[in-house]
Amino acid sequence: MPPKRHRITDDNLYCDSWRFSVETNDAGTWTNIPSRCVAFVQDYMTGVRYLSDSAAVANYSLSFARGVQIGGDGKDAWVFDIDETLLSNLPYYEAHGFGSETFDEASFDEWVDLAKAPALPASLKLYKELQQLGFKIFLLTGRSEHQRNATAKNLLYARYNNWERLLLRGPSDQGTTATVYKSEKRSDLINEGYRIHGSSGDQWSDLLGFAVAQRSFKLPNPMYYIA
Amino acid sequence: MPPKRHRITDDNLYCDSWRFSVETNDAGTWTNIPSRCVAFVQDYMTGVRYLSDSAAVANYSLSFARGVQIGGDGKDAWVFDIDETLLSNLPYYEAHGFGSETFDEASFDEWVDLAKAPALPASLKLYKELQQLGFKIFLLTGRSEHQRNATAKNLLYARYNNWERLLLRGPSDQGTTATVYKSEKRSDLINEGYRIHGSSGDQWSDLLGFAVAQRSFKLPNPMYYIA
Repeated sequence: MPPKRHRITDDNLYCDSWRFSVETNDAGTWTNIPSRCVAFVQDYMTGVRYLSDSAAVANYSLSFARGVQIGGDGKDAWVFDIDETLLSNLPYYEAHGFGSETFDEASFDEWVDLAKAPALPASLKLYKELQQLGFKIFLLTGRSEHQRNATAKNLLYARYNNWERLLLRGPSDQGTTATVYKSEKRSDLINEGYRIHGSSGDQWSDLLGFAVAQRSFKLPNPMYYIA
Repeated sequence: MPPKRHRITDDNLYCDSWRFSVETNDAGTWTNIPSRCVAFVQDYMTGVRYLSDSAAVANYSLSFARGVQIGGDGKDAWVFDIDETLLSNLPYYEAHGFGSETFDEASFDEWVDLAKAPALPASLKLYKELQQLGFKIFLLTGRSEHQRNATAKNLLYARYNNWERLLLRGPSDQGTTATVYKSEKRSDLINEGYRIHGSSGDQWSDLLGFAVAQRSFKLPNPMYYIA
């Protein structure tokens, strides 16, 4: 058995390559993080790297947004996902193995009902700056309609406000993948005359499909995958 | 001025977040790597990380390919980009600042004519395995038609062989972006009855656009960007 330091280095290399594959969508569908990567994901999520990566994405987003010509018609839109994009569920995942445990909907729903998820700092800053630039903000989440009140309460608790619309999965949206559900909702916005300049999400299913934004911004999330 | 170790750590954090933004396409169009990231990119490209990341992508590619039902009609296709996908131009970029110098077409073309670029090891292994599984291999490159001989010679030198077709930019393909050019060529293949199951490339312009593959695999490349 190699010395501990060596094993840790090997795990870091393995897990960093695993993270590359996950963040570029090369890994495709996956359920739990590899068991040997729990310490790696914990380090990444609770240290400076997660904050630094999120801040870099927000900076590129803002830099693009500043170049958008805002019309006078109130139809310039930006779409944000919520979980791990505007709000951070890190306190929940810290108590649940950082993505190494099988997802438990009941306990996660209890967490959602608490409405105490903090803002992802870089996203909160970006959100306010986009509003100042004149973008209308649409929040498009895989959360269900019955979680509307808890979600709105949590957003306000985290200092998000004045969104144009909060879009959740209604009864007719159940049973579709996130990619299709979110594409359909973006398509509806385009049909209403909105120009979706930017879209921010931690999942590729927030960003791909049809009716995609002019620019899509992938935030980091090595904890879980949603198809 | 902070001690050197501290500065290096700060640069590493900055450059790792820059790399995240580049590899996820969040950075959008960029020309040269940040000057403070030259040592970081050099470390990444010449150490184990580049090999490890490439190997992880190849493993996910093969894992997907093994699940594809191969028809008996010879129409199951896989599309590979060439530069930084099958062949590595690292010897050239080592002599040219790892992407920190402005791209010089004349000297790069001289390098191409040498036909001595080595294979990216993980891609060579994947290439052979895909052929054994029954995939037809299409090579789709931004290199020009006049570089056909040098390119084929280099591929054989690096032990690639038996590709179905080598597609280069002809006179009518000049002046289009890589995304459009490559989408058009994939579209032609689909019109010929090919099923493009997988596509491998180090640039998002190898993978996005229209007529995209069922699964796209993004290889690492923190040295340069092609629109």
